[in-house]
Amino acid sequence: MKLTLIGAGPGDPDLITLKGIKALQKAEVVLYDSLVHPSLLDYCPANSEKILVGKRFGKTSCGQDEINELIVEKAHQYGNVVRLKGGDSFIFGRGYEEIIFAAEHGIESEVIPGISSSYAVPAMAGIPLTSRGVSESFWVITGTTREHNLSKDLYLAAQSTATVVILMGLHKLEEIVSMYSGLNKLDMPITIIQNGTLEDQKLVTGKISNIIPLSKVSEMGSPAIIVIGKVAALPDLTHQRIRAMMQKGNTLAGSAD
Amino acid sequence: MKLTLIGAGPGDPDLITLKGIKALQKAEVVLYDSLVHPSLLDYCPANSEKILVGKRFGKTSCGQDEINELIVEKAHQYGNVVRLKGGDSFIFGRGYEEIIFAAEHGIESEVIPGISSSYAVPAMAGIPLTSRGVSESFWVITGTTREHNLSKDLYLAAQSTATVVILMGLHKLEEIVSMYSGLNKLDMPITIIQNGTLEDQKLVTGKISNIIPLSKVSEMGSPAIIVIGKVAALPDLTHQRIRAMMQKGNTLAGSAD
Repeated sequence: MKLTLIGAGPGDPDLITLKGIKALQKAEVVLYDSLVHPSLLDYCPANSEKILVGKRFGKTSCGQDEINELIVEKAHQYGNVVRLKGGDSFIFGRGYEEIIFAAEHGIESEVIPGISSSYAVPAMAGIPLTSRGVSESFWVITGTTREHNLSKDLYLAAQSTATVVILMGLHKLEEIVSMYSGLNKLDMPITIIQNGTLEDQKLVTGKISNIIPLSKVSEMGSPAIIVIGKVAALPDLTHQRIRAMMQKGNTLAGSAD
Repeated sequence: MKLTLIGAGPGDPDLITLKGIKALQKAEVVLYDSLVHPSLLDYCPANSEKILVGKRFGKTSCGQDEINELIVEKAHQYGNVVRLKGGDSFIFGRGYEEIIFAAEHGIESEVIPGISSSYAVPAMAGIPLTSRGVSESFWVITGTTREHNLSKDLYLAAQSTATVVILMGLHKLEEIVSMYSGLNKLDMPITIIQNGTLEDQKLVTGKISNIIPLSKVSEMGSPAIIVIGKVAALPDLTHQRIRAMMQKGNTLAGSAD
């Protein structure tokens, strides 16, 4: 019996890997999350069983225990199970818990990585998490830990030169701003990106000192990614020119040098 | 004129995205790095121009300035240029520098993210960078900064609960071990993975206290990724069982519960 975990990527269905597509094409049963783009299921054979485990009947989410049990049940039924998760299975994806549970029930696992939103969403919005001479490292934190607190690591991260990326943390924005303010980093650039890589992507950029009102005016909501660090300020003049080109498809031919 | 940056992923050619493949299929000219899997070039039209910019004629690498100039030259020649880079273009990939240079010459850019080795190589070796209750964040650092020093951020990271991932840092192993030793973290688990996701992948796991001799015995070399943190110890009994299954394709049917 085998469990194959596939990372579906950050939203755009073309950001799945070829390895992921090949695994979907052989799938007999797929357990998929609600953040997964529905068109990815079209790769699966027509007669395969497709089960939404993110939210059922528009009601509450399947609990992790329920998903784990379903994996084992379906593995016994079909011999193999495909698990399709948003982003990457191992970056706040709880994929490892599913592998452990499966292993405890005699099911081997294969992991097919997915493009993680943590860097791809900023990248496609024109923000590199690292850039020579600007930021030489990046730190990815979840705003939603098991204990529902902001990770204490953020206090160390905020003191570093690392680009800090906070996933699922928009509801902690005031706490984040307060931590940076306490470190006298009121001018630190910060960008919030909602629905990254999708057509309805929304983005707001500011500083620690003004991001809360800016976010309210723009009516930012979840799912969102927060990027804090000098790279978020690459919306300087040069960056704004590039971003405008990337979004509008215009060129600056003739205006350069 | 347009520049398209494609991340090729960590090694396995099936870990490129569908979006990346589609861009390669339309390419008229591709500038590719030496770490890119050669079979990816087969997606390009037969009559497209393919230029290795990583290393030429087995001699020294193309400098970044030379690559930048070539992008502009080829954009003028063809109207569009594809740039194929290992991993992801924006994670220590210097892709942003190429975009800036291109923009300054009137060339717009599109970024197609790639699977970054930083998490995919550990994942495919059975190590999740995050796992609920074990690690709630991860920090990715390069061992090779512009100033050739180990980032001072490592001292902050080493004090946190974050999983620390060091790319291109094997030559700094003694310095890394010394930093963790100074923080009294001799028992901190550490894994080194060489040639990740490829057939000749090599892996060694130990603790801060013994990783240097272990690495020497295993003759570990570059390119390598270093993972430090409790997740690297998921090679406990459970993890070893799972990894054995993942690598050997065996199942534990009947031995569970």
